[in-house]
Amino acid sequence: MGACPQSKQPLKLRVTQEHMQHPFDPGYFEEPFRTLVRGYPEADVYPYNQFRVEWGPIFHRGRLDGSARVLIIGQDPAQHETIVRRCLVGEAGRRVQGLLAKLGITESYVFINTYLYSVYGSVKAATRKSPLLVGYRNQWIDGIMDGSKVEAVITLGTAAAEAWELWKATPKGQASNVADAAVIHPTQPESSSNNDKTKKALATKKMLANWNIALQALSPVIAHPDVAIPLKLYGETWADGDRVAVPEGDFPAGLPTWMHEQDGWATRKGGNPLAKRRNITINVPKGTIP
Amino acid sequence: MGACPQSKQPLKLRVTQEHMQHPFDPGYFEEPFRTLVRGYPEADVYPYNQFRVEWGPIFHRGRLDGSARVLIIGQDPAQHETIVRRCLVGEAGRRVQGLLAKLGITESYVFINTYLYSVYGSVKAATRKSPLLVGYRNQWIDGIMDGSKVEAVITLGTAAAEAWELWKATPKGQASNVADAAVIHPTQPESSSNNDKTKKALATKKMLANWNIALQALSPVIAHPDVAIPLKLYGETWADGDRVAVPEGDFPAGLPTWMHEQDGWATRKGGNPLAKRRNITINVPKGTIP
Repeated sequence: MGACPQSKQPLKLRVTQEHMQHPFDPGYFEEPFRTLVRGYPEADVYPYNQFRVEWGPIFHRGRLDGSARVLIIGQDPAQHETIVRRCLVGEAGRRVQGLLAKLGITESYVFINTYLYSVYGSVKAATRKSPLLVGYRNQWIDGIMDGSKVEAVITLGTAAAEAWELWKATPKGQASNVADAAVIHPTQPESSSNNDKTKKALATKKMLANWNIALQALSPVIAHPDVAIPLKLYGETWADGDRVAVPEGDFPAGLPTWMHEQDGWATRKGGNPLAKRRNITINVPKGTIP
Repeated sequence: MGACPQSKQPLKLRVTQEHMQHPFDPGYFEEPFRTLVRGYPEADVYPYNQFRVEWGPIFHRGRLDGSARVLIIGQDPAQHETIVRRCLVGEAGRRVQGLLAKLGITESYVFINTYLYSVYGSVKAATRKSPLLVGYRNQWIDGIMDGSKVEAVITLGTAAAEAWELWKATPKGQASNVADAAVIHPTQPESSSNNDKTKKALATKKMLANWNIALQALSPVIAHPDVAIPLKLYGETWADGDRVAVPEGDFPAGLPTWMHEQDGWATRKGGNPLAKRRNITINVPKGTIP
């Protein structure tokens, strides 16, 4: 390889000149994540009657190279995450990207979920607190927090808040003094309002007020934002710019543009609960193919 | 990170003991592939009327770390490859894994395709020979061949044979004396027989005879097989062991077992050609969910 250094240089130049650049997430090539991703809990820890174990685990989104300033803990992956194999890539992800942007964090973040698998029905307390489930997740948090630059942790919803508390109870968690904020889950307004517009507007207002409290608590502790900006709180409803696209560079290599610019392209279809559970139907958005 | 080396050791031990190990392909973190995967030809090079550009490019399967002894060039990705984001992961892939196994190659291989995108209809000669299409592919072959240990190249079908000839015509190709064999594409018996059993049996017999010629040519030049085994040629039809599973370690992290042990789980469905083109429907195989 070192024999012909001159042959390498023109390669990069040619590619840069000819083709549009598509940053991508290089994935799990560094430890401890490479090892963690090889050996993950399966149906013995995540039972089939509470999780969609059949679709495989979804591990993270964002920086695993020690550059993250904010760790976000979500709940569980849904169908878009299952295809993309990254956490929070749909509407919930865009809302949290907006929250991060208000903290000046545009790149230096990492997401994990409370659960590796999509919740099916509800999760029993014994499962949620099982030592193998909690222990594996704590190894991820250890890997992210060990010698890292993380200045704040945001948990989305009650299960994620508990996940963080369970890490805080470990020796490493007790030794950590990183700031944290437990916020209402970004799609709680939808999940709690059952398509009732008035209820949804009220829940959105309540959630944004809750997020404003987190912003005021965390903004002062983010000492190294990607972009230094004055804190601008949310209003009583979503405003322009509050929802921010998930960066292409968070996605695996080669995924098409519509997968990171839109959602609604993956649905679960089936004539009965089992058929629906076995299915993910992907449709390229209309207008993509000229 | 170096401050607490003792905290790292138990991590690996715990994971190894508790959870089944799932090797995975770490992807595109090394050059020149990391750069090539950032900047790839799109619809200006691969027109929408000849390729399913809307699903994004599929780049490779196998070793990109310089350890490959055999390079296989396939044709184009289909729907399973589109979900897995790796080349030749279905039935064609299993047949070629079997061919490689007869050469003693179980790990030290790398696959690329002639085309980054799935062919839609047929490919025009001007597209097939376009300098940007050929040039980008040649950069991949350069990256694989530069200072590598590759001892043999196998091309699957006529388009792949031409792709290899076009690289052989470059300065680096002219300087290379690696052995090569152009073989009949592994699913040609199906594509040429239109569900006629007699035709398919004849085409299979012809293909296996063609593969036997390649085996006899390449077996002596594979100086460093993964496993030293005596050459056993194909019979006139598929025999037990001729089709070999695609290793789990060729797949991205976290993909479920059924994605690499089976195919037929991804189909294109739609009431008209455009709807069908926009769709990939995934169904978890029956019996997966207990």
